[in-house]
Amino acid sequence: MQDVETLKLAAKVAVPLFGVLALLFAALKASLVLKADAGTDRMKQISGFIHQGAMAFLGREYRAISLFAAVVALVLLYLGYTQKTPWVFACFLYGAFSSGLSGFFGMKAATRSNVRAANAARTSLNAALGVAFSGGSVMGMCVVGLGVVGLGVLYIIFGAIPEPMTTISGFGLGASSIALFARVGGGIYTKAADVGADLVGKIEAGIPEDDPRNPAVIADLVGDNVGDVAGMGADLFESFVGSIIAAMVIGVAMTDHSVRGIMYPLALACVGIVASILGTFIVRTAEGSNPQKALNNGTFLAGFLMIVGSYFLTVKMLPASFTFGGGAAYTATGAFLATVAGLVAGILIGLLTEYYTAEGKPPSVGIAKASETGPATTIIAGLSVGMRSTAFPVIVLAAGVVAAYLLAGLYGIALAGLGMLSTTGIVLAVDAYGPIADNSGGIAEMSELPPEVRRRTDKLDAVGNTTAAIGKGFAIGSAALTALALFSAFTQKAGLMKIDIMNPYVVAGLLIGAMMPFLFCSMAIGAVGSAAFDMIGEVRRQFREIPGLMEGKATADYARCVDISTRAAIRRMIVPGVLAVAVPIVAGWLDKEFLGGLLAGVTASGVMLAIFQANAGGSWDNAKKYIEAGNLGGKGSPAHKAAVVGDTVGDPFKDTSGPSLNILIKLMSIVSLVFAPLLF
Amino acid sequence: MQDVETLKLAAKVAVPLFGVLALLFAALKASLVLKADAGTDRMKQISGFIHQGAMAFLGREYRAISLFAAVVALVLLYLGYTQKTPWVFACFLYGAFSSGLSGFFGMKAATRSNVRAANAARTSLNAALGVAFSGGSVMGMCVVGLGVVGLGVLYIIFGAIPEPMTTISGFGLGASSIALFARVGGGIYTKAADVGADLVGKIEAGIPEDDPRNPAVIADLVGDNVGDVAGMGADLFESFVGSIIAAMVIGVAMTDHSVRGIMYPLALACVGIVASILGTFIVRTAEGSNPQKALNNGTFLAGFLMIVGSYFLTVKMLPASFTFGGGAAYTATGAFLATVAGLVAGILIGLLTEYYTAEGKPPSVGIAKASETGPATTIIAGLSVGMRSTAFPVIVLAAGVVAAYLLAGLYGIALAGLGMLSTTGIVLAVDAYGPIADNSGGIAEMSELPPEVRRRTDKLDAVGNTTAAIGKGFAIGSAALTALALFSAFTQKAGLMKIDIMNPYVVAGLLIGAMMPFLFCSMAIGAVGSAAFDMIGEVRRQFREIPGLMEGKATADYARCVDISTRAAIRRMIVPGVLAVAVPIVAGWLDKEFLGGLLAGVTASGVMLAIFQANAGGSWDNAKKYIEAGNLGGKGSPAHKAAVVGDTVGDPFKDTSGPSLNILIKLMSIVSLVFAPLLF
Repeated sequence: MQDVETLKLAAKVAVPLFGVLALLFAALKASLVLKADAGTDRMKQISGFIHQGAMAFLGREYRAISLFAAVVALVLLYLGYTQKTPWVFACFLYGAFSSGLSGFFGMKAATRSNVRAANAARTSLNAALGVAFSGGSVMGMCVVGLGVVGLGVLYIIFGAIPEPMTTISGFGLGASSIALFARVGGGIYTKAADVGADLVGKIEAGIPEDDPRNPAVIADLVGDNVGDVAGMGADLFESFVGSIIAAMVIGVAMTDHSVRGIMYPLALACVGIVASILGTFIVRTAEGSNPQKALNNGTFLAGFLMIVGSYFLTVKMLPASFTFGGGAAYTATGAFLATVAGLVAGILIGLLTEYYTAEGKPPSVGIAKASETGPATTIIAGLSVGMRSTAFPVIVLAAGVVAAYLLAGLYGIALAGLGMLSTTGIVLAVDAYGPIADNSGGIAEMSELPPEVRRRTDKLDAVGNTTAAIGKGFAIGSAALTALALFSAFTQKAGLMKIDIMNPYVVAGLLIGAMMPFLFCSMAIGAVGSAAFDMIGEVRRQFREIPGLMEGKATADYARCVDISTRAAIRRMIVPGVLAVAVPIVAGWLDKEFLGGLLAGVTASGVMLAIFQANAGGSWDNAKKYIEAGNLGGKGSPAHKAAVVGDTVGDPFKDTSGPSLNILIKLMSIVSLVFAPLLF
Repeated sequence: MQDVETLKLAAKVAVPLFGVLALLFAALKASLVLKADAGTDRMKQISGFIHQGAMAFLGREYRAISLFAAVVALVLLYLGYTQKTPWVFACFLYGAFSSGLSGFFGMKAATRSNVRAANAARTSLNAALGVAFSGGSVMGMCVVGLGVVGLGVLYIIFGAIPEPMTTISGFGLGASSIALFARVGGGIYTKAADVGADLVGKIEAGIPEDDPRNPAVIADLVGDNVGDVAGMGADLFESFVGSIIAAMVIGVAMTDHSVRGIMYPLALACVGIVASILGTFIVRTAEGSNPQKALNNGTFLAGFLMIVGSYFLTVKMLPASFTFGGGAAYTATGAFLATVAGLVAGILIGLLTEYYTAEGKPPSVGIAKASETGPATTIIAGLSVGMRSTAFPVIVLAAGVVAAYLLAGLYGIALAGLGMLSTTGIVLAVDAYGPIADNSGGIAEMSELPPEVRRRTDKLDAVGNTTAAIGKGFAIGSAALTALALFSAFTQKAGLMKIDIMNPYVVAGLLIGAMMPFLFCSMAIGAVGSAAFDMIGEVRRQFREIPGLMEGKATADYARCVDISTRAAIRRMIVPGVLAVAVPIVAGWLDKEFLGGLLAGVTASGVMLAIFQANAGGSWDNAKKYIEAGNLGGKGSPAHKAAVVGDTVGDPFKDTSGPSLNILIKLMSIVSLVFAPLLF
């Protein structure tokens, strides 16, 4: 027996070591990036602006969040004390800190690698890809590393207390809270700057994208980092951690094998780390070929290694047959297949997203054609595409849920979520690569580097748009599965035997829950609208009042624009954030089944709105690019003007309100999970 | 005992007589309209075009629906035969026929009263209001009359067989099927014409609204009738009938008093008819005052009479205390209050809708201001308003559902729906008045009547826009309650003891259900987009190819435009219609709980999308009107151009895809209700 105990301890200690491995790999990648040359003085100056703006925003954002976190921590401290689980608040703070830390590292890496990627593009495409992808890898590996270290360490500390998961779940709540503010705040920031820069700079003044004369250009480049790097990172950190926690909570009930039930999800995450690291090694491209292929190869290799690795892990680790509290019996093979089902569903949703958004595919070409009759038909066509695009991903998701349940019960649903997220390390690296490539193009433009450099960065950037769309689909799919898994975990913790739709409280919850994402989106979109309005006013003012600006003889006041975005983002993220945390607590305090209905409603309508907005936005974007490539009259034609309107409407859809919903549905579930044993 | 039986028979016979009363009142109103003078030859000619176009469309639409109805009837005949309820198919056909008939009468009255209202406007505002409102009353009274006659007669015929409601529910299915095609087809028709007429006529050619030189102008005027009169009528016919049926189905189970449980909803509807008729008598206005007040007075009087009447009815008719199959005991007062709760919720939702859409209120003024920075910010602001506007109506709805349930169980939810719909007679009269007033303005413009006439019709039309918005809110609220009531009725008929959200099939159903409204809207919006594209091409062609058209020397080929709208509407209504009927059947055949989740998902996301689209559309419309009234630069300013884009996007939202969802959620529930005892 002592051997078994030693083995268990070794396994427990091994988990955080895999997390440390990911962090070491991130450090290695970061040092590789920093070793690269940052180019000319002008390049260094511009990237300095971006770096300062991004870090200043992060600082102010984290200060604002700290206040919020302190309040929640106090509430948790009090409730935890009364319920004899005194350490929930500490786990919460640790989760919040880890999420913040990964955002900090990721963004630092991104704002260092953008300029170096631009400089590398002066030599070769592969060199530039290498730098940009290395920068993205820092974010990816930090997220999975800090997640696994966090949960692994907490399990070592609290694994022996009764009901350890009640305490450890606090880690997920911390991660989620930060994620909400990072996504909403980052989303408002980036789009206020983007819309403002485009509407006045490109449309009114007629100067190109990323032109240094545009006062909002730095804010726009900063926005790519705070929205697409830090926001996406916090989103996936939350999904990753949340899906592991959900599986651990359900795994506790595994009859005769509760430790295995809890450890297995952690071990799966470790396999994912190794698979992701190995996947990064084959990401390289030749001068003439498409960098997309290189990135895909890495992702697919990681997915393949994950499947192989998890098969051996499952056979070794899980008992051949197991039950949860005497219910139906499941097999180790079933658990393995549920993991694979999630992974496959994630890939399918990504591919479907690509179809609905990619340049040259029928949906975006249709929107481009509708642009010939003006902006109204552009918008109508895009809304139609976005709505239609919900159909197949949702069917895939529903099929995945049913399959996973049949294979391994509620545990299977959580494993499917984890399966989808197991290769987060490389998926996020690919995703964070996008804004880095985008930034490197902007720096090349502003530093007036030769056209072949810009051509190379454009090539990297175009790939980035596709990876961003796929990444968004993936983020939504994984958020939905994670939310469902957390929801299942919540029902177990809350001791709910059923949530019956025939109960009018559940119906009321369902309706109010389905309304929440609409309200939430309205706030996010409204924030972008009003911040963009301010930004437009400021850019117009600078063009008018700064003499010589348009002639390139004077410098724009970039800081003012950065400040407008920053203030709007911080101010406008508060209400939605507080709402998302408070509503489930109040609802659960009123009636647990009402809360159950509410969570189901939030998830159902949230997933639809998220897919709708992400794909409508992506499709408008690429319809514009299709016209800019010379079709239907090309740049400057009436069709192009209409397409720009579509793209501008799509911006807050795909980068602010849409992605915030991923967080909303997970956050409301994890709030319920954490507070259920404390309060309801 | 014989006395009781005689009394019961008398009550049964009295119900259809109240329906006949409504029909007689409709006939009286119709004869009043026809007696009025139709004005000049030019006016007669134009109204003749509209009448022909509308009737031709209705004829083709009904032919297409007949085919569909025949197939469904055959299926019902077969299934009914095997399940020993052989007459379901006949009830289905009767319901379909009644819905079609009320659409036919209503539209005939509308296309006769538009020109007479225009002519009456040459004398006084009150005379014009009188004609337009009388025309609307025909529709309103036909709907409630045919509904009550239908259900009353069917109950006399089938009341004595075992499980009568299994057969009688077929009537509701018939009404719903027609409603779907009428709403979707009418919605596509009207908006394809409207968008086409506006984009080329108003924006490109710069000619005023309703200008006879615009080839799409007749199609546009026809569209008001087929979309807003016939479509809305079929929608409310379905809600009215559906809510009565749902209450009857649940009422069957009233312990010891099943006949009272079944008859009470019918009797409530009869009280509503009397209240509505009395309400119409006080709708009159003076030359200087606002016609809105007159319409409101009528509606509020009817509501007040309904509350008083239903109190006495309830006390007389329902036992002081009753149960359903031995569950919780409810009181007659509770049933009365549940009815009132529905009525109050309906009024609140209407008022909220008015706030979010009315000209001069903060939401639409905010959109107007956003138009100053171009069409993109107009669209963003409108989407944000629409999304935000879901919050309060949904909270009202949820509170209504819970209150009604606490007062009288599932029966209470059905009664709340019925309470909201009890005054449909006058509500629909007010609603149908809108497009008649709109048409009369168009006829006045095309016939070149003096400006004071156009001023009077404009005044009537402006009121019509507000009544239309309130009517839409009302239609959505009642559809939601009806769908929930039908859903409850379905669960009873299907013998479902629970629909547990923790069951993965229910989760899958919920997700797929929540997706359906998005898919459905996409089809409807896509149909408008592509039909408008064809219309734009045709109008441009006529301007180009018909010599002297722009100078007013040649006549446009109106028939071609009418034909484009007609064909697009008929062709594009098929797939969504078949989908809405087939999906619940397939789902229920797979698994009843899966279907339960699906219906809940459809209702939850359908209600949100319906409110969102109706209010976004209404608000864009009135933002444009606010600018046209001389604000923010007035007509022709850049802000106005941007606002026109918003209005054009809002058109299919508020008149095609949004309203179709009302039908979708009811239809899918009633399909489930009718097919459950036959198939699942």
